[in-house]
Amino acid sequence: ANSVFAACGTTIFETMSRLAQRHDAINLGQGFPEGLEPSAVIEQLARAAADGPHQYPSMMGLPALRHAVAAHECRFWGTGVSEAEVMVTSGATEALAACLFALIEPGDEVVVLEPLYDSYLPIIRRAGGVPRIVRLQAPNWSLPRQQLADAFGPKTKLMILNSPANPCGKVFDADELAFIAQLLERHDAIAICDEVYEHLTYDDLPHIPLMSLPGMRQRCAKIGSAGKIFSLTGWKVGWVVAAPELLNPIAKAHQYLTFTTAPALQSAVAWGLNHASAYIASLPATLSARRDRLAHGLAAIGLTPLPCQGSYFLSADFRPLGFSGTDLEFCVHITEKAGITAIPISAFFESAPPGDYARFCFAKTDQAIDEALRRLRRHF
Amino acid sequence: ANSVFAACGTTIFETMSRLAQRHDAINLGQGFPEGLEPSAVIEQLARAAADGPHQYPSMMGLPALRHAVAAHECRFWGTGVSEAEVMVTSGATEALAACLFALIEPGDEVVVLEPLYDSYLPIIRRAGGVPRIVRLQAPNWSLPRQQLADAFGPKTKLMILNSPANPCGKVFDADELAFIAQLLERHDAIAICDEVYEHLTYDDLPHIPLMSLPGMRQRCAKIGSAGKIFSLTGWKVGWVVAAPELLNPIAKAHQYLTFTTAPALQSAVAWGLNHASAYIASLPATLSARRDRLAHGLAAIGLTPLPCQGSYFLSADFRPLGFSGTDLEFCVHITEKAGITAIPISAFFESAPPGDYARFCFAKTDQAIDEALRRLRRHF
Ligand SMILES: CSCCC(=O)C(=O)O
Ligand SMILES: CSCCC(=O)C(=O)O
Repeated sequence: ANSVFAACGTTIFETMSRLAQRHDAINLGQGFPEGLEPSAVIEQLARAAADGPHQYPSMMGLPALRHAVAAHECRFWGTGVSEAEVMVTSGATEALAACLFALIEPGDEVVVLEPLYDSYLPIIRRAGGVPRIVRLQAPNWSLPRQQLADAFGPKTKLMILNSPANPCGKVFDADELAFIAQLLERHDAIAICDEVYEHLTYDDLPHIPLMSLPGMRQRCAKIGSAGKIFSLTGWKVGWVVAAPELLNPIAKAHQYLTFTTAPALQSAVAWGLNHASAYIASLPATLSARRDRLAHGLAAIGLTPLPCQGSYFLSADFRPLGFSGTDLEFCVHITEKAGITAIPISAFFESAPPGDYARFCFAKTDQAIDEALRRLRRHF
Repeated sequence: ANSVFAACGTTIFETMSRLAQRHDAINLGQGFPEGLEPSAVIEQLARAAADGPHQYPSMMGLPALRHAVAAHECRFWGTGVSEAEVMVTSGATEALAACLFALIEPGDEVVVLEPLYDSYLPIIRRAGGVPRIVRLQAPNWSLPRQQLADAFGPKTKLMILNSPANPCGKVFDADELAFIAQLLERHDAIAICDEVYEHLTYDDLPHIPLMSLPGMRQRCAKIGSAGKIFSLTGWKVGWVVAAPELLNPIAKAHQYLTFTTAPALQSAVAWGLNHASAYIASLPATLSARRDRLAHGLAAIGLTPLPCQGSYFLSADFRPLGFSGTDLEFCVHITEKAGITAIPISAFFESAPPGDYARFCFAKTDQAIDEALRRLRRHF
């Protein structure tokens, strides 16, 4: 078997979800929402299923969806992209794999920020890339600018930028983005912008796509996710937005990774992007209220919540509870003993992780959050 | 950009489908069926869409679908696999990519038979593998056993076996499979068995899964496709069936390529595998009648049809028509001038292809086949 993949475990999300299921625990681990699914968009899937078509659509995606994604980009972020610059993928995970396999030549360096989503390093390595890992500084996840600048060099081909970031909930600000943009230009590098949580920023913080900065239009491949926009993570419809010269090789990878995505899903997502702006606009208020509900509850029990500016996730320091094991042991312990599941933050680090934080998903119903807190309180 | 993908064109299927659309041609190019979709299975998609769930299912696939695939394997092929040996993928293309990225270590050799499906070579190369190409001998696509034996060596890790084969419609017989099995054992190699057309063999020829031969259970990763079984190619639901030790690394690749597939699609496919055996059993009679209709029609116009034992595809020698360009030029010519699209067989060869054959998809309505023949007759 290939040595990169043979060295990987099962993803922490799957592992903890299986454990949650076995113990009938409330699953605040894997990042999928509950009680937020927009019924109008779901109805469109049933309609598209009934109406068809059911054969291979064009490999770049249904024209209607490419058009809707381009319009969504322009309306929300003013990037002025056209549908020719949009490629539909079978979820953001496939989009990321297509970008990395397409853009990395063996030996190329890829700058990534830690904590990082767990598919980044295996795919970079399987593509022949060499990750250069720069660590955001807990507990505020601030960007160490000098270290970032030092990670760029003559072999740098790519940077992956995830904003809003999973798991740390950081939203990069205009100043940080300008700093990154200047490094990309200086080193003639490309950014893969994982913006799947683009609509989930809180407290009136704006999401700023790196692509919208001067000079960045040709240097960014932006990844979006219908699953995250419409709280329908199982649909696995994503996209890459990039200038034609950049998108072209990515399309070559995509055509051999999955080729295309079910037209019924694509057409329901197109409808959603065209008609469900009110739903999209409503999520930050809903989700930040849930974030606060969870944060206050965790604090009341004795954990120390970290700042969270965006995404589905709140991390918290569990040491004040007196638990002395690792963060993985803590997450397994509360799943088995208290009936609530979280994700250990160490899973998002390559080595020497901070060991005191657990990540909780707050994209759940108030009842689920309250019951999770009740269970945790009862246990500690 | 990565040199392997940068060297690739857009797939011939996409290219010819776009051209067909532009010229309003009858598309007998890309392999998707028309008029064969089972309405009961489609109704299940609409039902599953309405009922949910819509969040991430387990990364290995819905238990109901894994169970149904295992039962389908046992019922039709007697392989006795269990659901633990099944992983659901976002189509057979993803299944193939997951197998190759998971099992190839850079420098490993992969034996393939030409003509070959167009994603094989790019993915083998992108995974770091070295293809060893053995050519089936036209016009009967017979297996050159000595050349095949010579292609195996100390570096051989894998062989890809596609039976029934696209584009040549060859169905490997028991004797050929036994020969291949013995090579796999002698060289301690694994076979990736692309059996997406497993139910489409004609004239009472049996499909024999390589996995069903003695000693092959541990050496085969079989790829199946709901799109092909149910004539719903746009659904992009496939699977890998393999012994646990073999499936385990493939699952590691899958979790970072797409992670999972929409539960509504999965549950409709599970229903189909459990309930639509009569549909599955009806296809060979329907499709072989269409193959014959097309073959007779092409022969009457002057082309020379090649044998076709299975799959959606019939190839034919177009030289008797007096056309002197390449096969690609022929396919473009008939698309633009006659309003009927086919695929040039040269697209399935790495180099020095036979230049006289065009591939026609006969999984279309009788009316479409008749009109295509009428247009071709009118033109030549
Ligand atoms: C692909 S499962 C992971 C879902 C997710 O984004 C997360 O939990 O971080
Ligand atoms: C993925 S598009 C190709 C469809 C097909 O199997 C073929 O036409 O050969």
